[in-house]
Amino acid sequence: MTTQQNDFSKWYIETIQKADLMDYTPVRGCIAFKPDGYEIWEHIQEEMDRRFKETGHRNAYFPMLILESFFQKEKEHIEGFSPELPWVTEAAGEKLEERLALRPTSETMIGHLYSNWIKSYRDLPVLINQWSNAFRWEKKTLPFIRTSEFLWQEGHTAHIDEEDARKETMQMLAIYKEVVEGLLAIPVYDGQKTPSERFAGAVDTFSIEAMMKNGKAVQAGTSHYLGTKFAEAFEIKYLNKANQHEYVHTTSWGTSTRLIGSVIMVHGDEQGLILPPRIAPTQVVLIPVGPWKKNPEIMEKLDEIYAALKKKGIRVRLDDSDQSPGFKFNEWELKGVPVRIELGPRDLENNQALLKARDEDEKQSIDLVNVVSAIEEELTTMQTRLFEKARQFRDANAHINIDTLQQLQQHISSSKENGSIPGWILAGWCGDDACEEKVKEETKFTSRNIPFNPPTTKTSCICCGNEAKHTVWFAQAY
Amino acid sequence: MTTQQNDFSKWYIETIQKADLMDYTPVRGCIAFKPDGYEIWEHIQEEMDRRFKETGHRNAYFPMLILESFFQKEKEHIEGFSPELPWVTEAAGEKLEERLALRPTSETMIGHLYSNWIKSYRDLPVLINQWSNAFRWEKKTLPFIRTSEFLWQEGHTAHIDEEDARKETMQMLAIYKEVVEGLLAIPVYDGQKTPSERFAGAVDTFSIEAMMKNGKAVQAGTSHYLGTKFAEAFEIKYLNKANQHEYVHTTSWGTSTRLIGSVIMVHGDEQGLILPPRIAPTQVVLIPVGPWKKNPEIMEKLDEIYAALKKKGIRVRLDDSDQSPGFKFNEWELKGVPVRIELGPRDLENNQALLKARDEDEKQSIDLVNVVSAIEEELTTMQTRLFEKARQFRDANAHINIDTLQQLQQHISSSKENGSIPGWILAGWCGDDACEEKVKEETKFTSRNIPFNPPTTKTSCICCGNEAKHTVWFAQAY
Repeated sequence: MTTQQNDFSKWYIETIQKADLMDYTPVRGCIAFKPDGYEIWEHIQEEMDRRFKETGHRNAYFPMLILESFFQKEKEHIEGFSPELPWVTEAAGEKLEERLALRPTSETMIGHLYSNWIKSYRDLPVLINQWSNAFRWEKKTLPFIRTSEFLWQEGHTAHIDEEDARKETMQMLAIYKEVVEGLLAIPVYDGQKTPSERFAGAVDTFSIEAMMKNGKAVQAGTSHYLGTKFAEAFEIKYLNKANQHEYVHTTSWGTSTRLIGSVIMVHGDEQGLILPPRIAPTQVVLIPVGPWKKNPEIMEKLDEIYAALKKKGIRVRLDDSDQSPGFKFNEWELKGVPVRIELGPRDLENNQALLKARDEDEKQSIDLVNVVSAIEEELTTMQTRLFEKARQFRDANAHINIDTLQQLQQHISSSKENGSIPGWILAGWCGDDACEEKVKEETKFTSRNIPFNPPTTKTSCICCGNEAKHTVWFAQAY
Repeated sequence: MTTQQNDFSKWYIETIQKADLMDYTPVRGCIAFKPDGYEIWEHIQEEMDRRFKETGHRNAYFPMLILESFFQKEKEHIEGFSPELPWVTEAAGEKLEERLALRPTSETMIGHLYSNWIKSYRDLPVLINQWSNAFRWEKKTLPFIRTSEFLWQEGHTAHIDEEDARKETMQMLAIYKEVVEGLLAIPVYDGQKTPSERFAGAVDTFSIEAMMKNGKAVQAGTSHYLGTKFAEAFEIKYLNKANQHEYVHTTSWGTSTRLIGSVIMVHGDEQGLILPPRIAPTQVVLIPVGPWKKNPEIMEKLDEIYAALKKKGIRVRLDDSDQSPGFKFNEWELKGVPVRIELGPRDLENNQALLKARDEDEKQSIDLVNVVSAIEEELTTMQTRLFEKARQFRDANAHINIDTLQQLQQHISSSKENGSIPGWILAGWCGDDACEEKVKEETKFTSRNIPFNPPTTKTSCICCGNEAKHTVWFAQAY
């Protein structure tokens, strides 16, 4: 088997296939989400959806097909997305008069509809989210992380003024951070994107950024303040209290199935997946060991534990197949099941069972009377432990003492030589697009975001050496 | 306002727009599902999904784009669907080598994948469901009922033999019946489709059929036994216990957002929607009446009731806007809110409130101490009452004494003359496609299904008069 160390990308692709999360299909860049992969998404959806509704949002559904003329209405938007659009040109045996794009994002269609739905300040804010598929026909694809078709949620809100819209933008970014850190055990830096990395058509884009085990960054969620750009393009106006027409201020925000890929690349190890308990399709696997077929009490006890865990709402499997225990251990480790319980005749005699946490080396011996509470506790502590491990890994590979382009280049080449990962670097930036572009050209490191809470503040631009206006995370990114 | 009596179709379209369930879009046949419309779908999804999972199914997600060559593999399938397919022919600025269809249903893509996923009898059954959008570019569209893009679930299962696959087909039909009757309060007849009405590529199609208030039928859910047709087309074989390769037997089954339209057309009245409590986005609305602004105790009491209902998980709204009570009553009746509570100063003095059920004429006076339990009880009884009312309406309009084509024609013309609805008729059928076709040509009545439990059994064919092989529901259908 390919190791993470040797070839991270190959390890990733092999692992998600062996663990039954996905399969390739004959349609370019489109994958099938198998049940174990899709269920991770269902757990993400459930938690996000709960948080959206708690904060007053409602779900709706908008057409997937968008008129070409809609895209033309916001100049930056069409420039940003047109290179990636798939087009429907024929339907029911006839050529269409106007091409229809498969949505890459829905600001235009929703902008058009909001202009009819919003009349007065009484109609504001409009707080709507959509769960759907979306399409971006990109050159390089990678399962979950970058696929031609992906699943996502896109929130689209309209507000009375800038203050209210900006509050929404930040609120949703905070929710993303809490869900990604709490549910997926992935530590992220929240911050603002530089102008060159903004969403096409946004005034400001904010993101949460996560570090994968190969040091690369994944943009795990974005929240945009769109100002009145789409309101102007689609004439979304309201009558204010003084009876005057004003443009609404809009926001949009999204997270996608790339979160599934991120979880794999943040937590996985050479044995396969490591899934945080809160999103694992199977949280606990029970495995009889030793001469268990001759000892029916073993299966009786395991059935009992199984029923008790089910009752607690824990997602449990009992593997009583004919395979050897060693085979089963490998199989369930590959699939990233957080907790394994082993029970053999000698264990039963001693009123004990063995508990193995997926991310720890040692097995624990636990009293059978406490087995359910011991499992519950392990699931909770493991969730926190995985987050802490990921945070330590990230912090160890997020370098804050690189001050010049030359130092960065040296850092990258020495990483290559000693087989370590280059990770992220925190750098000062003067604010000039040209400096940012030069860093990218010479190192392939791109700006990730300007973190709200950087570990330190940098004073000079990594490229030109002038005074730094911003402290920025740079990294190679997916 | 248009009445149901005058113009049912116009009433339907006006009502769903005024009640904020949907909006038209500039893309032909594609609607926007507004939050109040979409939430009905969310409640349907939640209940269906729970039932699917209880019966061992898991969700997955398959690509929306399907290769043209895949459709060619099952002859009946491509013949049935090709007239309705929209095609992607260009993407990212380039013409595609092979056109990609927007899925009308996913048997082909899933068949292709299952042929890789299924190796041995140990892999069976495969029990997978998908929640997604789908596309059928139909000539005549009607919001929710028949749209170019719709939302649905499609189950796709593979089995070891015919017996197991047929058991699955019937199990899912039974779940559909239970959910549509229990959750949507829509009575249905379950039965088998005649060959001419079968799903393209199925061996047998089963359906549940519901009667709308204009007497038309809606096919509310279908479940198909596909035999080995798709297994043969896509080479889905497994190794049986005797080490021989055999084709799997597959099923598919689906329900869609047309259920939203059905709910409106089964329960609505001249005042607007009537939503069954279990799926109503707002179940209870609280309205202060009389000089309530001068009596702060009114709002205090309503806030208290509001909090108590929220705590019980009841979806409640408090309308303290400046509109008149009469305006509010109309507004919330139009939106179909099941229960309205009115509270004014005199009511409060008497420790009472008025409860108005959306489908009943009389208001009830209830003691304030019991208000929460009275509301809970009303929501439960109303759910059952709506089902009973719909069943009585259907039974009154499902005619079982029409034996000849001439009688049917007379029935239809006399309905037209006296402004009543023609409804459904139960007819004998010899089993000859030509007889079925003739009924359709002469009366526009099509066969709906061969009910498992017909109210009576017919002995002679309605068309040719020969011995009837089947007793069939005929009706005009959406």
